[in-house]
Amino acid sequence: MTVTAPQGFEAAGVAVGLKSTGKPDVAVVVNRGPLKVGAAVFTSNRAKANPILWSQQAIQDGVVEAIVLNSGGANCFTGSFGFQTTHQTAEKAAELLGVSAGDVLVCSTGLIGTGDETFRAKVLDGTAQGIAALSADGGVDAARAIMTTDSVSKTSTFQGDGWSIGGMAKGAGMLAPGLATMLVVVTTDAVLTAEQADAHLRAATRVSFDRLDSDGCMSTNDQVSLLVSGASGVTPDEDAFRAALAEVCGDLARRLQADAEGASHDIAIHVVHAASEEDAVEVGRSVARNNLFKAAIFGNDPNWGRVLAAIGTTEAEFDPYRVDVEMNGVRVCSDGGPDRPRDEVDLTPRAVSLVIDLKVGDAEATILTNDLTHDYVHENSAYAS
Amino acid sequence: MTVTAPQGFEAAGVAVGLKSTGKPDVAVVVNRGPLKVGAAVFTSNRAKANPILWSQQAIQDGVVEAIVLNSGGANCFTGSFGFQTTHQTAEKAAELLGVSAGDVLVCSTGLIGTGDETFRAKVLDGTAQGIAALSADGGVDAARAIMTTDSVSKTSTFQGDGWSIGGMAKGAGMLAPGLATMLVVVTTDAVLTAEQADAHLRAATRVSFDRLDSDGCMSTNDQVSLLVSGASGVTPDEDAFRAALAEVCGDLARRLQADAEGASHDIAIHVVHAASEEDAVEVGRSVARNNLFKAAIFGNDPNWGRVLAAIGTTEAEFDPYRVDVEMNGVRVCSDGGPDRPRDEVDLTPRAVSLVIDLKVGDAEATILTNDLTHDYVHENSAYAS
Repeated sequence: MTVTAPQGFEAAGVAVGLKSTGKPDVAVVVNRGPLKVGAAVFTSNRAKANPILWSQQAIQDGVVEAIVLNSGGANCFTGSFGFQTTHQTAEKAAELLGVSAGDVLVCSTGLIGTGDETFRAKVLDGTAQGIAALSADGGVDAARAIMTTDSVSKTSTFQGDGWSIGGMAKGAGMLAPGLATMLVVVTTDAVLTAEQADAHLRAATRVSFDRLDSDGCMSTNDQVSLLVSGASGVTPDEDAFRAALAEVCGDLARRLQADAEGASHDIAIHVVHAASEEDAVEVGRSVARNNLFKAAIFGNDPNWGRVLAAIGTTEAEFDPYRVDVEMNGVRVCSDGGPDRPRDEVDLTPRAVSLVIDLKVGDAEATILTNDLTHDYVHENSAYAS
Repeated sequence: MTVTAPQGFEAAGVAVGLKSTGKPDVAVVVNRGPLKVGAAVFTSNRAKANPILWSQQAIQDGVVEAIVLNSGGANCFTGSFGFQTTHQTAEKAAELLGVSAGDVLVCSTGLIGTGDETFRAKVLDGTAQGIAALSADGGVDAARAIMTTDSVSKTSTFQGDGWSIGGMAKGAGMLAPGLATMLVVVTTDAVLTAEQADAHLRAATRVSFDRLDSDGCMSTNDQVSLLVSGASGVTPDEDAFRAALAEVCGDLARRLQADAEGASHDIAIHVVHAASEEDAVEVGRSVARNNLFKAAIFGNDPNWGRVLAAIGTTEAEFDPYRVDVEMNGVRVCSDGGPDRPRDEVDLTPRAVSLVIDLKVGDAEATILTNDLTHDYVHENSAYAS
């Protein structure tokens, strides 16, 4: 049920030919209230797609009535024509729903540079068809309609004490910080103010989507939106809601990681005893972006030297001759020197746990990444995205 | 003749079994003077190999009598035993040459974590054998002895007005800024002070090796050394010498790029009309490190959207809607939107020229990189380095 699991939401997913495969490619999610609260976070890439430019303005007042999402074209670097397409999409939805266009968010994903007249006509058609097809159990269809190279749709739900959260996500490549090539919509029927929604969303994405770094490439179209209907009538405990939202976002992030293009390993890099959380994140991200380390994991090679070389490129507080490295439970490096033999490490499972102990302080962070594989190279050389 | 092309130098390359293939693995280069001037630049990786720690101290006084280099083991993260190995190597060379150990530089390359007693014995043996084999035409042998995964040895020479420069380099993977997994020795018989040698070397590496970024991975063992014999008796014009040294370093850098592990394209990223040289370098490096762009080039796909997405992750001054992108002479993007059709771009040649016009100022820089290929993944997953 995903985004329609919480009360007060309707959704739909329809096919209008944006995808050459004929699969669903436009999704609509509508908030039936009584609250129409919304919050969103966006890619930090300075080259932003038209839907991002639009949604950043639309979210300012904290009011969101609906969100329209399309796959099959990013509408990025398509000039003022492309921006008008986004604007017209919001206007079309607003007209059919009887709301203000400024309260409609828009998301697009697909090939950069795609956004011509045919694209526009199909997106507008899909918006109308989606609104006509809205239903209280349309969440599954909506989740399918936002898929691009995803092999499965990603959804998650959480049942709180009288309130609930539902979410859907898409993303398989260009997964990097400041968000990934991901579109995420999370809904809740809890009662929240716009300020609370914004604060909770930022807190949750900071430790979930922002710590997923599959391939170091930052997208132009990333957007995570939270829609609040308040239909449960229940005002949740703030800490409980924040934890639940972080859990849903973390679950969706792990599903994105598990379906990352071409990956054969899901790597969790746990950096512990760092001087600060920033240091832990910097170290984890540096290792997550090291192609040599990522290729070694693909080859089931517990190459801790590449881990230390990657740490050495950071500004984090550490002494190379104090660092311990553990892979899948085997300490291969102690105090910056060899410890257990490499062949004790079993890297055949898909899940890989890397623990880097900096022995400096008490802070820690976990970064999620994938290995660098032949399939990654193949999919990203053969698929024009 | 490489490093023995200039007058006043002898070199040798010998095989002592550090490489399992039995190929040459220890090189010695000796400066016979009359000047014994030296300068060196080192990896900026904070995790530094033992030979780096040693050479950084040895170069302080600007006097270098000789340099000993080994392949087949990086002597990095091998603890105090490894540092003593480096120290003993310098002492052995000093004793046999009748000079001070503090005037002997040491370089190592190979697998991180390699540096046990067998390694030490072989390096010391190789040092003695190399010194016994020194000759005025030993430069070619020395260049071969520093190869690791290199498929060819890299050498370069320059004939000035009464003086000359010779150089050798090794490096095929881990090519990144702050230098690559490269060892480079450049010799000259020009008359230079230590201060001049240092200034000229820093100026030359800044625009050559420091702008080669094959795979974004920074090594623990990089070192570029300049040895000055003054044997020509000629004091060169400062500008002419600096330009010549930059040319030799640039030539060696392009040879490293051309032999980068698994690469099928050599990509020159020219960033023009940037607000500053720093901006131009930042933009070029960001594109050079974007796996999606690199995989697209491997697939002969002129994917300019990935170029703009990479630029958007920088702090450089630019407006996404003003940027032009040209690939192999075809302008595929004008003012941040589509221009010529993608199929006009021929990416089948190995050499790829990418021009990014930021239209902001007058600064420019060129970054050299390679594509991301199946062979890169294969070599770096199957070869433990």
